[in-house]
Amino acid sequence: MSESLKVAIAGLGTVGSGTVKILEKNKDLILQRAGCLIEVIAVSARDRQRDRGIDLSNKQWFDDPSSMAEECGADIVVELIGGSDGPAKAICEKAIASHKHVVTANKALLAMHGTALAKLAEDANVSLAYEGAVAGGIPIIKALREGLGANNIHKVYGILNGTCNYILSAMEAEGRDFPEVLEEAQRLGYAEADPTFDVEGVDTAHKLSILTSLAFGCPIDFNDVFVEGISHIRALDISFAKELGYRIKLLGITEKLNNGIKQRVHPCLIPESAPIAQVNGVLNAVVPEGDFIGNTVYEGPGAGEGPTASAVVADLIDIARGKVRPALTVHTKHLKPASFIPMSDHMGAYYIRLSVLDKPGVLADVTAVLRDHDVSLESMLQHGRSPGKTVPIVMTTHIAKEDAIRSSLKKISALKSVVEEPLSIRIESLN
Amino acid sequence: MSESLKVAIAGLGTVGSGTVKILEKNKDLILQRAGCLIEVIAVSARDRQRDRGIDLSNKQWFDDPSSMAEECGADIVVELIGGSDGPAKAICEKAIASHKHVVTANKALLAMHGTALAKLAEDANVSLAYEGAVAGGIPIIKALREGLGANNIHKVYGILNGTCNYILSAMEAEGRDFPEVLEEAQRLGYAEADPTFDVEGVDTAHKLSILTSLAFGCPIDFNDVFVEGISHIRALDISFAKELGYRIKLLGITEKLNNGIKQRVHPCLIPESAPIAQVNGVLNAVVPEGDFIGNTVYEGPGAGEGPTASAVVADLIDIARGKVRPALTVHTKHLKPASFIPMSDHMGAYYIRLSVLDKPGVLADVTAVLRDHDVSLESMLQHGRSPGKTVPIVMTTHIAKEDAIRSSLKKISALKSVVEEPLSIRIESLN
Repeated sequence: MSESLKVAIAGLGTVGSGTVKILEKNKDLILQRAGCLIEVIAVSARDRQRDRGIDLSNKQWFDDPSSMAEECGADIVVELIGGSDGPAKAICEKAIASHKHVVTANKALLAMHGTALAKLAEDANVSLAYEGAVAGGIPIIKALREGLGANNIHKVYGILNGTCNYILSAMEAEGRDFPEVLEEAQRLGYAEADPTFDVEGVDTAHKLSILTSLAFGCPIDFNDVFVEGISHIRALDISFAKELGYRIKLLGITEKLNNGIKQRVHPCLIPESAPIAQVNGVLNAVVPEGDFIGNTVYEGPGAGEGPTASAVVADLIDIARGKVRPALTVHTKHLKPASFIPMSDHMGAYYIRLSVLDKPGVLADVTAVLRDHDVSLESMLQHGRSPGKTVPIVMTTHIAKEDAIRSSLKKISALKSVVEEPLSIRIESLN
Repeated sequence: MSESLKVAIAGLGTVGSGTVKILEKNKDLILQRAGCLIEVIAVSARDRQRDRGIDLSNKQWFDDPSSMAEECGADIVVELIGGSDGPAKAICEKAIASHKHVVTANKALLAMHGTALAKLAEDANVSLAYEGAVAGGIPIIKALREGLGANNIHKVYGILNGTCNYILSAMEAEGRDFPEVLEEAQRLGYAEADPTFDVEGVDTAHKLSILTSLAFGCPIDFNDVFVEGISHIRALDISFAKELGYRIKLLGITEKLNNGIKQRVHPCLIPESAPIAQVNGVLNAVVPEGDFIGNTVYEGPGAGEGPTASAVVADLIDIARGKVRPALTVHTKHLKPASFIPMSDHMGAYYIRLSVLDKPGVLADVTAVLRDHDVSLESMLQHGRSPGKTVPIVMTTHIAKEDAIRSSLKKISALKSVVEEPLSIRIESLN
């Protein structure tokens, strides 16, 4: 490594600009911590004119990020363009091919091509670092790869998407329904104009697939993540959950069981007493469970200019310190393909909400269906009476098979007195 | 580095035995994560006969840990004997002198001699690693040195002693007083026979002095930590605090202010809504505040065989991966001696509890003293009336100077109707 570490940044959105800002503002302390100067020598972005609040006058400007990756004289290329394919992927591949280290915060790219990129980086003996890809500034990648390295990890779960957590927290605090709160989140910049990736759980699933590989030593496999979003949750469910001692959070959960690995993203009822039940707003939190350490909780801002750029710069400092470790905790040749357990085999407790006509016999019909599918009830709530009108009934089950729940709900939804599609939310005890 | 990394362990108490257990049980995954086999070749402990549940038959046994540090053929010496001086210090110095890396979980040693040892390690180009010294298995040293390396850290605070947190949690849950709960904690093994170091805050101060150096780039300075323990807290205070919306925790707090660094350990009233207010029992939690990342929270088991040994083995894996970074985030030549702010200059809000004779005029006398010292009240609680008898009165102040509080309390304690020494606890808003 030379006396200074030369960096090229592809993409000057919030995180790219933030990275330049940190390297400027904290230059002296980063110099001491990194052991050498880290300087941005080249940048590439679509709009050359935009005022980003940073001085780019002394940097080479490339219109084509791909040629920057190959031709600039940098030691490291930082990819902050985003997207699982296209330019982002090309830049990383070209940078590695020309023996440059790669730092990225691109979870979609890693979810789809992380294992292949890790192998390319190994073969070229360069680093592929991506602390900013999961949970923003929280150093959870480092914790899993290094801090907890002594442990056999058997489960990792967390709140990995700030947009969903903001929406669910606001629904709870204000008793408002999803569409209204989403609109507000968009106005405040907490949700994108097209919020699909966030609210339908895809972003969480991208991140979870990376954590799965780090925790269990298998290739990254995004396609085997079960994904369900939060757009069907109502304020009503949050208030029923509260009455039952739970909060509703969108979790990513990955666990190693006897017969394989189960990766899933869905809304969960979690006990109010669980540490991550208190994590509100745009915050993220991740909980790995290890055989010697037990549970540790990592909580903080999961997105945004400062936090994500903080993670990018931490990666740069690591590389400056001469650290080249396998990108996925172990060398790709040691990754063991996993067998993934389908969600239909999931065993768990369930919250079920029905809209039924309040008349004699409805409950008998519903419970008969559940009995026929070996689903036993733990509790039932129906508030007040409105004979002849539609009322919500909420039930929680003991441990049952997902398959049985799905079949039961199909049968129940066909009952005459059931007026809406039944809704179910999985309950996670989180030990 | 050879194909295997050879380790010698001095001290086979719970953490030493735990380290051997982890390296045995998780041998294969550690091999892959470390890139080479990590094997214990030598051990030293006082009692050769004791059954530790581990197989030591193929290890060299040294009766004298100091000669082990020099003479065994290990690459790394793990010091787990404890104590700030004596054999622990000698072992570390000898290991470094014979160009062996050192891993330790000894906070007392680091608090007293950490800077000198870091310099010795730098000069010998070996690692001095100590993840287990603060907050057990939680990788907070790594987070401060590496994960948050991009940030100018301006404050770090946390619950760093599981014994005190257990005692305060139990006092709150059960409404019992300190001596009774301490006795139970001793019976359960959560407190030592001589609990002074824990309950008087010394252990927390050891850890805090290490965090101060990592966060602010100054030499470790234990002597400039203000220390106050929890033995004077009563169940009564916890219940008054609750009524006011607070919990009582023993915190270590270090912050960089305009005029210097303030390191302090004392019980605090913290808002019930603060993330670490929910951290109960023997758990630890640490919150660093950085300029770009904001606040992150690290929570988990702060002591015990599995967690602390997990941290020791993480250090071994780091060293196996060829990483030699400055022990204190920056090279010792870059450490800037700090000027420490005396506690008498502290500005903060205070909880004050008085035992007074319930008779007319008492409150007027007390508030007159406070007024004369520029201390203004935010709230006052007195429950019921017991004319002529002793009653507790609780007050909280607006921001005041510690000096003024101390002088006021001295005057107040001299008032005729004040029957016991007044008690004060600092209130921390934790933003």
